[in-house]
Amino acid sequence: MKKAIVLLSGGLDSATTLYLAQQKGFQCRCLIFDYGQQHKREIESAKKIAQSLRSPYQVIKIELPWKGSALLDNKINIPKRKNTGTQEHKDEIPSTYVPARNIIFLSFALSYAEAAKAEAIFVGANAIDFSGYPDCRPQFYRAFKKIIAAGTKAGVEKKKIKILTPLLRKTKAQIVLTGKKLGVPFALTWSCYRGGKRPCGECDSCYFRAKGFREAKIIDPLINK
Amino acid sequence: MKKAIVLLSGGLDSATTLYLAQQKGFQCRCLIFDYGQQHKREIESAKKIAQSLRSPYQVIKIELPWKGSALLDNKINIPKRKNTGTQEHKDEIPSTYVPARNIIFLSFALSYAEAAKAEAIFVGANAIDFSGYPDCRPQFYRAFKKIIAAGTKAGVEKKKIKILTPLLRKTKAQIVLTGKKLGVPFALTWSCYRGGKRPCGECDSCYFRAKGFREAKIIDPLINK
Repeated sequence: MKKAIVLLSGGLDSATTLYLAQQKGFQCRCLIFDYGQQHKREIESAKKIAQSLRSPYQVIKIELPWKGSALLDNKINIPKRKNTGTQEHKDEIPSTYVPARNIIFLSFALSYAEAAKAEAIFVGANAIDFSGYPDCRPQFYRAFKKIIAAGTKAGVEKKKIKILTPLLRKTKAQIVLTGKKLGVPFALTWSCYRGGKRPCGECDSCYFRAKGFREAKIIDPLINK
Repeated sequence: MKKAIVLLSGGLDSATTLYLAQQKGFQCRCLIFDYGQQHKREIESAKKIAQSLRSPYQVIKIELPWKGSALLDNKINIPKRKNTGTQEHKDEIPSTYVPARNIIFLSFALSYAEAAKAEAIFVGANAIDFSGYPDCRPQFYRAFKKIIAAGTKAGVEKKKIKILTPLLRKTKAQIVLTGKKLGVPFALTWSCYRGGKRPCGECDSCYFRAKGFREAKIIDPLINK
């Protein structure tokens, strides 16, 4: 059976990606990161989502003592989304950007994939309804693929490890519809950056989630329970 | 003053790289990794080397529970170097290769560099007298530079973070001579993969170190004290 490593944050996109990977016939192992994020509760969500498919998971603890992000440093405000009703602002990178975060996550996934002889890494990155993070864009994933060829044993030995980003060009509504079809337990997912008892409804992540459910004409069970 | 992040393992090459970076006028911050290596004593060496230049350092603990390397898994033998006297075997990757290790190290360095607004990352990689690790070769560093442009805030904002590998094409003897000239405290460095009380003299790392000192006609104070 073909094996895959799945990056699982506990949010809507990575949960849908795990369900997609499993549907495509991959035996999935999930990687969950405890990287000092203020919304630690997403880790519990990620574990529950992995368990919902009986998929084995590893929680990897990462220190980023230099912080440099509103997600890590409670002295930096998590910005409220300005609902302008106009085009999404994709050219300004918000303070919730964590320096090189997805590069770090992917390199751990690559290490795991090499050691476990997995042939694919699934990432729930999305470059449509997103905050403009550079490490969610197609050009980043294209560049990372070259790293695998140039800098790993698997690459040198021509054993391919693919980076698969099935949601990269979907809207959030399309992701919600895909997840719905696959039976993703939306109520178990967590998106809010603030990580309180209930989603704040004001951060970028809450904004895009709400937009997705609204446009998909589906009720978000996390909000309406 | 221009700032740099320096990857410091505690070995000959990274120590020489730190001394070179400081000589070039960089204000250096060292990154040391505790990644489950059996030769943990290199961490103490790295700290002492940083202290010898009063350079601040961070020790980052990393979990790689999937292991996949003789450096991490004591059930895998650290191979003895076969001293054939012929051409170095660069096409076979030895069991001491740690899956994606340098990619992980560089991505942490990149995160630190972005957060600290450093303009360079120094890496003591060497592709001449080396074990054939893919993540020590020039093509890997070239590919990694593209990651910075494509996947970081610094890259998007055209703030350059350079990856500098001043020892990449030097022989080990040239590295020893460079270190000697810069006053690198060789006695503080540690190269042996086995991490015993004294260097084993049999592993790849001991082999290349001995070759370097011999060809440079300098006595290794670590061995001859």
